[in-house]
Amino acid sequence: MSRRIFLALQQLLGPSHVQNSEEAAPYLTDKQGRYVGQVIAAVHPANTEEVAAVVRMCVATDTPVVVQGGNTGLMGGATPDASGRAVLLLLDRMNRVRTVDIDNDTLTVEAGCILQTVQDVARDAGRLFPLSLGAEGSCTIGGNLGTNAGGTAVLRYGNTRELTLGLEVVTAEGEIWNGLRGLRKDNTGYDLRDLFIGSEGTLGIITAATLKLFPLPKARATALLAFDSLAQAVQLLSHVRAGFGASLTAFELLSADCLSLLREQFPQGPQPFLGAGQPWFALLELSDNHSESHARQTFEEVLGEAFERELLANAWIAESLVQSEALWLLRENMSEAQKRAGRNMKHDISVPTSQVVAFVAHTDALLQAHFPGVRHFTFGHLGDGNLHYNVAHPLGSTVEAHMADYAALSLLVHDSAHAHGGSISAEHGIGQRKRDILERYKSPVELDLMRRIKQALDPKNLLNPGKVLEVLAS
Amino acid sequence: MSRRIFLALQQLLGPSHVQNSEEAAPYLTDKQGRYVGQVIAAVHPANTEEVAAVVRMCVATDTPVVVQGGNTGLMGGATPDASGRAVLLLLDRMNRVRTVDIDNDTLTVEAGCILQTVQDVARDAGRLFPLSLGAEGSCTIGGNLGTNAGGTAVLRYGNTRELTLGLEVVTAEGEIWNGLRGLRKDNTGYDLRDLFIGSEGTLGIITAATLKLFPLPKARATALLAFDSLAQAVQLLSHVRAGFGASLTAFELLSADCLSLLREQFPQGPQPFLGAGQPWFALLELSDNHSESHARQTFEEVLGEAFERELLANAWIAESLVQSEALWLLRENMSEAQKRAGRNMKHDISVPTSQVVAFVAHTDALLQAHFPGVRHFTFGHLGDGNLHYNVAHPLGSTVEAHMADYAALSLLVHDSAHAHGGSISAEHGIGQRKRDILERYKSPVELDLMRRIKQALDPKNLLNPGKVLEVLAS
Repeated sequence: MSRRIFLALQQLLGPSHVQNSEEAAPYLTDKQGRYVGQVIAAVHPANTEEVAAVVRMCVATDTPVVVQGGNTGLMGGATPDASGRAVLLLLDRMNRVRTVDIDNDTLTVEAGCILQTVQDVARDAGRLFPLSLGAEGSCTIGGNLGTNAGGTAVLRYGNTRELTLGLEVVTAEGEIWNGLRGLRKDNTGYDLRDLFIGSEGTLGIITAATLKLFPLPKARATALLAFDSLAQAVQLLSHVRAGFGASLTAFELLSADCLSLLREQFPQGPQPFLGAGQPWFALLELSDNHSESHARQTFEEVLGEAFERELLANAWIAESLVQSEALWLLRENMSEAQKRAGRNMKHDISVPTSQVVAFVAHTDALLQAHFPGVRHFTFGHLGDGNLHYNVAHPLGSTVEAHMADYAALSLLVHDSAHAHGGSISAEHGIGQRKRDILERYKSPVELDLMRRIKQALDPKNLLNPGKVLEVLAS
Repeated sequence: MSRRIFLALQQLLGPSHVQNSEEAAPYLTDKQGRYVGQVIAAVHPANTEEVAAVVRMCVATDTPVVVQGGNTGLMGGATPDASGRAVLLLLDRMNRVRTVDIDNDTLTVEAGCILQTVQDVARDAGRLFPLSLGAEGSCTIGGNLGTNAGGTAVLRYGNTRELTLGLEVVTAEGEIWNGLRGLRKDNTGYDLRDLFIGSEGTLGIITAATLKLFPLPKARATALLAFDSLAQAVQLLSHVRAGFGASLTAFELLSADCLSLLREQFPQGPQPFLGAGQPWFALLELSDNHSESHARQTFEEVLGEAFERELLANAWIAESLVQSEALWLLRENMSEAQKRAGRNMKHDISVPTSQVVAFVAHTDALLQAHFPGVRHFTFGHLGDGNLHYNVAHPLGSTVEAHMADYAALSLLVHDSAHAHGGSISAEHGIGQRKRDILERYKSPVELDLMRRIKQALDPKNLLNPGKVLEVLAS
């Protein structure tokens, strides 16, 4: 049967666009190396019609279909299971920019476009596509849509969902829904768009999208701020929200331990506030539509007022683009610094901004009580209440001993986030990694609504089965 | 049976909170007087548990449930049918503000809150809740959520959907989904929130919501601009988008004929550009986080540049709050001015901004060819591509003769909007009025997806039946 499907796919797409498991090996292990899958075939369709034809063939043979973008996800959401029953859809050939509509401030791109390409095309048209995240050089817009990716510009521009006006989707029956509308207002029926976005390929295959563009800021101002407490950082956030309004484009938190780690791992990098003694820091960015001098003036005015009101302990304002980039490098190097220091436990949680202080105090104390000596590397998008609450092994212990406690420790962190009104996955999604713990935090009513929708749109459970939700055989 | 249900509802809610059709008469006719319904009872539950209990009773007796907010909708979406089989849910007693969370910039309100109350509570807390529309003094936030209401601030802040973080919903089974999250990032499963928003009470009953708040602007600047052509107005929109960025908070179009109509019907009102001869005008507003003088300076700088580049013919800049309010009054009086001049045909369409000029030219010409002499009163939210494309009877003819052509004329307008990549309902929804024509403009694939979702969430078709979609008996 598998052989027959393989040959039929070759006939459909041409032999050079269909690979076996061996040839497709790079796509069958997730980025973290946690999951390894097998497939009947990995296919590279050229266009939406070919995607639809592949899905129809899979439906006819009860073959699961897994779609994958740049394979940069952290939850194993795009890795097929080990059964070898699935077909893996790769949309790398579908990477055209279909249209750029300057007067409407939109562009329409195919799902296989690399995020950075979308940013570049927008910039070449004199516009900003604001979605920005670590993997932007290799992740695809289809993957961003499938997971409703976040990143560093959410504070001002929203998640991928808020940046999207229209979609083209291949349904679980292999039909094509053309919902590529470039409209900012359209109240004609149910919001299918937002249902497909973030559904991680379990409700339909997103093949193209119409995205919002924004004016390119004329100038930016960046600073690294030091705080005497996390509470002070939250107060300053409120202050700059009011003072900068929509010009506030980043508020990225870093703990003092994060800065020390960066110093250790990147001794050639910038060394701001060396030995300053404050426990918390934040990277602040303002984007301005007027001019450099206007940006600078606003920045200094609002920060000056903050100093007077004792809303921060210190500020290092970038005097040049080079200095600004050096500050951003701190934030961007956090992933790599952690990797170099040895594996740690990552938690992508969010809580209401008003709960951040209580969450961190409570969770830190709880972990110290249960796992004495663990080290906290807490950073993230404070402006969105999204913390990367990461926990490393105690000095004097080993990474391996620490990682053995992963399930127990994560349970405490996730329970605490939930108890503070938060989410166990702010921007990384569910995939296969958080699928089972989701049951703990969602009410039976919500899980039931989700299952009904899955059943309605994918009654044979062929689209990325085993991800997001466990579906009971019907 | 109806009598038994009536008595059971009285027992459940108390006799004073259950009305018969006669007592409930004001709720049984829609605002435009187009639809008149009958009910078993109109009920006023005190809280979410009572709403759930009413729905459960209705499910047990196969009784349809229609929810209504301030009865200000234009599509008959909240008016029960004439069969007298339904129970009408009125949430006027559920009008509490549950929480205001300043540090998180959110508030949680019950569905029965009047929109203006929500705005006021936000302002008292030093924040802005930006949703703003003509009916704000009587419409409810529940109605706004049910229809994904738009209004004049969409350009900057988005529709109701974009202003909402969490919902509480009573499902079609009478269960309560507590999704009242105050999170700006939460990627844990399917986006139920956005599915319920805009579903016009056909998928669930929204009983409360957690809404986003924004900083209150420190200053505003307003101007009425005159253009030599509609194309020039679209160009200016692009120019101020880039120049003002997120400070651009309104761009409301008015044709010269609209200004003349306002002059006729409100001779005591302001008379800007009397006899100036330009065919198009726009109300422009900038909101500023700094100060009056800063707002003024930005405004004059960007408009000065626009004059140099010949992107507008003339500008009347408000010199005071009184003048600014006078300009806004022009826009706000448009509804009443049309009403005084006699009924006309209203079309709430949207097209991509880049298609506005072509749409208006094409549709105006088409209507003149088929219905010579009809008069166009075109205005609306140009910044969102949303036009109120309204058409009045030819001078010398009668309103009655004109209205007899409603179906034929509207078909041309809607076909044209659709052909220009647009929507036949930008912000008013579908209700019962546009239900059947929706079938003409949505693809079979999209209608099928919508029906599957309706079937999955409301399998007995008891929630607001006959609205949005025709559901075939299963």
